[in-house]
Amino acid sequence: MPQALEEDTIRILVSTDNHVGYAERDPIRKDDSWQTFDEIMQIAKNQDVDMVLLGGDLFHDNKPSRKSMYQVIQSLRKNCLGMKPCELEFLSDPQEVFDGKADCVNYQDPDINISIPVFSIHGNHDDPSGDGHYCSLDLLQAAGLVNYFGRVPEADNIHVKPVLLQKGETKLALYGLSNVRDERMHRTFRDNKVHFYRPGQQKNEFFNLLTLHQNHYAHTPTSYVSENMLPEFMDLVIWGHEHECLIDPTKNDIANFHVIQPGSSIATSLVDGEAVTKQVAILNITGRRFTVEKIPLKTVRPFVTREIVLATDKRFKGLEKKQDNRQEVTKRLMTVVDEMIKEAHALWESTHGSESVGDEEPPLPLIRLKVEYTAPEGSKFDVENPQRFSNRFANRVANQNDVVYFYRKKTAVTRKIPNDSKQIREGVAEALESVDTIKVDTLVQEYFAQQSLKILPQAPFGDAVNQFVNKDDKHAVEMFLIESLSTQVKGLLQLDDEKVTDDLEAQIEEYKKVMEKDFVVGQHKQAQRKRRFKPKPDGWDSDLDGHWHAQPEALEELAAASPPTAPKIRGRTQPTSGVVFSYEDEEMLEEEPVAAEPKRATRGTRKTATAPTKKAAPAKKAAAPAKKAAAPKKAPARGRKKPNPFEQSDEEEEDVIMEDDDFEPPPTRPTRAAAKSTRQTTLNFASQSQKPVDATQKAIEISDDEISEDDDAFETMPAKRAKRR
Amino acid sequence: MPQALEEDTIRILVSTDNHVGYAERDPIRKDDSWQTFDEIMQIAKNQDVDMVLLGGDLFHDNKPSRKSMYQVIQSLRKNCLGMKPCELEFLSDPQEVFDGKADCVNYQDPDINISIPVFSIHGNHDDPSGDGHYCSLDLLQAAGLVNYFGRVPEADNIHVKPVLLQKGETKLALYGLSNVRDERMHRTFRDNKVHFYRPGQQKNEFFNLLTLHQNHYAHTPTSYVSENMLPEFMDLVIWGHEHECLIDPTKNDIANFHVIQPGSSIATSLVDGEAVTKQVAILNITGRRFTVEKIPLKTVRPFVTREIVLATDKRFKGLEKKQDNRQEVTKRLMTVVDEMIKEAHALWESTHGSESVGDEEPPLPLIRLKVEYTAPEGSKFDVENPQRFSNRFANRVANQNDVVYFYRKKTAVTRKIPNDSKQIREGVAEALESVDTIKVDTLVQEYFAQQSLKILPQAPFGDAVNQFVNKDDKHAVEMFLIESLSTQVKGLLQLDDEKVTDDLEAQIEEYKKVMEKDFVVGQHKQAQRKRRFKPKPDGWDSDLDGHWHAQPEALEELAAASPPTAPKIRGRTQPTSGVVFSYEDEEMLEEEPVAAEPKRATRGTRKTATAPTKKAAPAKKAAAPAKKAAAPKKAPARGRKKPNPFEQSDEEEEDVIMEDDDFEPPPTRPTRAAAKSTRQTTLNFASQSQKPVDATQKAIEISDDEISEDDDAFETMPAKRAKRR
Repeated sequence: MPQALEEDTIRILVSTDNHVGYAERDPIRKDDSWQTFDEIMQIAKNQDVDMVLLGGDLFHDNKPSRKSMYQVIQSLRKNCLGMKPCELEFLSDPQEVFDGKADCVNYQDPDINISIPVFSIHGNHDDPSGDGHYCSLDLLQAAGLVNYFGRVPEADNIHVKPVLLQKGETKLALYGLSNVRDERMHRTFRDNKVHFYRPGQQKNEFFNLLTLHQNHYAHTPTSYVSENMLPEFMDLVIWGHEHECLIDPTKNDIANFHVIQPGSSIATSLVDGEAVTKQVAILNITGRRFTVEKIPLKTVRPFVTREIVLATDKRFKGLEKKQDNRQEVTKRLMTVVDEMIKEAHALWESTHGSESVGDEEPPLPLIRLKVEYTAPEGSKFDVENPQRFSNRFANRVANQNDVVYFYRKKTAVTRKIPNDSKQIREGVAEALESVDTIKVDTLVQEYFAQQSLKILPQAPFGDAVNQFVNKDDKHAVEMFLIESLSTQVKGLLQLDDEKVTDDLEAQIEEYKKVMEKDFVVGQHKQAQRKRRFKPKPDGWDSDLDGHWHAQPEALEELAAASPPTAPKIRGRTQPTSGVVFSYEDEEMLEEEPVAAEPKRATRGTRKTATAPTKKAAPAKKAAAPAKKAAAPKKAPARGRKKPNPFEQSDEEEEDVIMEDDDFEPPPTRPTRAAAKSTRQTTLNFASQSQKPVDATQKAIEISDDEISEDDDAFETMPAKRAKRR
Repeated sequence: MPQALEEDTIRILVSTDNHVGYAERDPIRKDDSWQTFDEIMQIAKNQDVDMVLLGGDLFHDNKPSRKSMYQVIQSLRKNCLGMKPCELEFLSDPQEVFDGKADCVNYQDPDINISIPVFSIHGNHDDPSGDGHYCSLDLLQAAGLVNYFGRVPEADNIHVKPVLLQKGETKLALYGLSNVRDERMHRTFRDNKVHFYRPGQQKNEFFNLLTLHQNHYAHTPTSYVSENMLPEFMDLVIWGHEHECLIDPTKNDIANFHVIQPGSSIATSLVDGEAVTKQVAILNITGRRFTVEKIPLKTVRPFVTREIVLATDKRFKGLEKKQDNRQEVTKRLMTVVDEMIKEAHALWESTHGSESVGDEEPPLPLIRLKVEYTAPEGSKFDVENPQRFSNRFANRVANQNDVVYFYRKKTAVTRKIPNDSKQIREGVAEALESVDTIKVDTLVQEYFAQQSLKILPQAPFGDAVNQFVNKDDKHAVEMFLIESLSTQVKGLLQLDDEKVTDDLEAQIEEYKKVMEKDFVVGQHKQAQRKRRFKPKPDGWDSDLDGHWHAQPEALEELAAASPPTAPKIRGRTQPTSGVVFSYEDEEMLEEEPVAAEPKRATRGTRKTATAPTKKAAPAKKAAAPAKKAAAPKKAPARGRKKPNPFEQSDEEEEDVIMEDDDFEPPPTRPTRAAAKSTRQTTLNFASQSQKPVDATQKAIEISDDEISEDDDAFETMPAKRAKRR
């Protein structure tokens, strides 16, 4: 990049899914996860980036071990602190973007010298839970080491307010959308309850960058976020949660933005997608252009996968007819694994070059050989016990218990949709046998499919059990019981005496249903549907990895129902701004059809019951501005230095802001004088301290007061704008 | 204090046992613990102290909830960071005093502005555990918020190296001895394996301050640390672990130092000792004098205890003869509780004065009424169910479930020592009924008293179960099994074939015994003895509170056996320096009698097997200097500015350093010119930066190299020095 542009270029190291703590009790792999995270933070320091952006799942466990927490703190402290001042001007109100949890962005704290601020959203592994709804990132933020943004206090009503940053002439609006369970997030998008805010001034000068952490591809029609659900004004989306590294930006031609999926920095599952070279990206944003530098990670253990079908592979073909062919099959398979180990070493050497020649041995590789051993009727490939086979490679591979995975092709008959409960149970048992880790909530759902509860709502019960198991929350079930029962009792106490004596059971059932419905739309139904769409792929651990394979059947059915890739636009009729499309498949909308009612107050009220109670305030705030009728909303005057409030537009008429949100070409920007060849790091900051930055004063505010005179108003943008202009 | 002395006065806020997280799930008391800790940190800031010293159990849980951790981080960050530089010069080698876990004391990190450094040892509640042996304080230290010192990497061989600090003319040697299980700590002292180091230069100018976290009073003869075991050269000891606030320094006339027991900052148990006004101390150390300011804590919930005996109390006397006296007894007891609540309010008002008159209601008090309802033969006091009685005070007290505690006087007969296992079991069951929280390791011990294990050692098994339950360490049992079994197998593999075939079982038993013995000396025997000495006091939760009542019987027996208050001095014969006394009661020393062997190499070797393996290195270091024969060891030349290495004296002759370790009178110190009336905070630091402090260079080092020429050598002091001179 030309030197002249450097002072206008925001350099961002981007990484997601570091999963620190993964396999920390494995004798060989125990240090892999934190060592790679440490490498990433060192890259950030050595590459002299302006900031680091993490896309969720920094930690593998909801309650990380002390060792994991310690290592992460160490990596952050060693690499992010320093004398070099951060050159990013912070233009937002910290209270807003950090949801009241931090008074300022960490590099503006006068008592801590942060050179490289880290911004992070949370993922599904390190999401808030338990008393006070804290997550690991809250602790890191409290310690001044991370800026945790993109919180989601209410999963059913999400307000995404960007962190506004500026360096030289480049302005960045950084949007964060932390993880929400996929079905729920999908529903919130569907209900137009995801509100994206835009700066009220110089809106079109901002580069709009969104980070989220959700399923990227359709696994079931409602358990993912489609790229096309996201607002078109975005320039770039950093997609977390998916572990496959797809570091090159891909253009979405419909939504008109680019997407980068950095993938995980550690393989948490032995599948092809994880064997792709792990890389991080350095984004260089200049004006509204960006470039990407890819940096392969050197600490990542080499990983080679291969798949063979014995019946057609030339080395095995014919063996099935021999009697007692086990020894021969095993021997030949061992040769294949030997090749793979060699390949892994070659891979290591190719990325490490002369470094690896020297003193240190390359690390033991991860090897996964998938073997289909289906044989024609009357013959068979006699394969060894997979663990025994794998153990033959002890001290040569890092995963000595699961080097090989044997499977037989299922006949078409077993694919049939089961229609009695016994069959379902068997199907589930079969599916469970084939995965390493069992998804607890699925188990609970399956259990309740056979049972019925009289007083407690099932879905939240399942969630509580899930919290207990997966989030290590000892008190989840207790809290669930207390809450559910007190809701029940309160409800029943309000009944007329008559009703109680008449039909107490029906009333109990009624309240149970309400709680159930509030919690999730037809979770059980979806669970059944999920089975129909896509049986768990062999060896795929969806709890860890999300669903990164697009499912053709799911997509087809989805398309038939109501294509999310081309949602029906109903902009005019939406009561709140946000994503403006809906499905027509009534079957999928168990709670309520998205009809075009002007205000659905009842519904809103009912929902707050299930939303996290702690953060009820923003909902009120969001509702207030609806009173403001028609503030002038033309493109804001440029170059104004005066701070200007945000404004949230909740009007039913949404034809007000129609900004140019094309990514290419960005507005041509005068090339900075080439003479300025040296970086002005210090100068920049000196001048900043001359006109001291009081974040709260300079910040652009989101306000619910009357500010209609202000022509620099800041508005909520519909993710899909109405086609009217 | 005269202004002139201020620049020579080190002001230290002292607090222990904050137990943040205690009762955090109680609907009323949930915020008590962290709010009081926050108050303490605010006092530190407002009182402008130079540092805070915490005596362990900052956290109540070994794995604190995120909420607790978050609140502590917040309190530290809000109150300890700031622009005012810390005026303490740090004279130690940080690697030594922080055990390699921190490169520098937090206030010397150039990237964090620490105004008030916090120094802390760990307690029994927040001790290191699990993979990597980290504790919560490690995390706070990694984040730069706390200086965790006084680590105990090897419980059987402890090296206490002081943090050396200087402000103006005052020099402070701050010793920290983190918690070790009491029996084990006692044994380590007994075996002369607690080594206290002293500065090699200007030794007599240092004020010696020790913080520890152990039982203070004899509960059993070996489950505490006696004041008289501690080195006489100390000037002041801050005693953590005991919850009763005894803030006024008490002089120990034998050991010749003072002791302050700050007590817990929250009541974790409803006993008299916890009802004493909770206070923190501000120590002002000038030269070798100190003064104490007491500051009562204002956020602490008022707590009133009372004890009545119905048979003798004038309000109840005679009621036992009435038929159906329950209602009357209850009514009169309620009057007593009403009085106590009033008393609690008065207490609150007396400490808060006009503050409480205003807007805020005083908080609900803690009330504990202990009622003895023994009645003469043939009559009875008919008392209500204690919980039902307590619930009558819902919304008026903070502990609505245990306001009252009813008990009957046991007849002398039941005090008899049980001598068959059935009686033991019944005794235990009885004891357990009377406490709120059951001590897990006691349960396990009791269980194993009835059972026998063939392969696994019992004591470590109990410890693993205890870790699992009390430290929330999910992997403790797994790790214990792996370790025990691999030790067994390794041992058995080394046997001759003959032996194996001859008597495998005996060999297994043998290894089991070795592991058992390594773990703890006669733990089970002591457990039984404990019962004999002191049945659990009613309502006293010894897991939480340690044993703060001196036990007359225990002391008597102890005194008879071998009085710890006047231990037999055997200085000459000890192989290593350290505490020089031993018991003669052979019965108490199951492992080995402390005979006067010159070197007990065998024993030492065996013991290393049980010591935490991670930190084996220091043991070697300690052994090395024994080679050095006779370095000149006269009192060091004063005023030398050159840094000088520590030296550890392991010689058998210990008559070398006989410093003046009297507390009173301190060496008379020239009063600083009264003209210097302003504090020289900035000046002080400016001058420091002119001659930059490189901690590692300036530090006084402990070295095991030949440095015998150096007359400023630094030596291990025997805790009880030999009486020879």
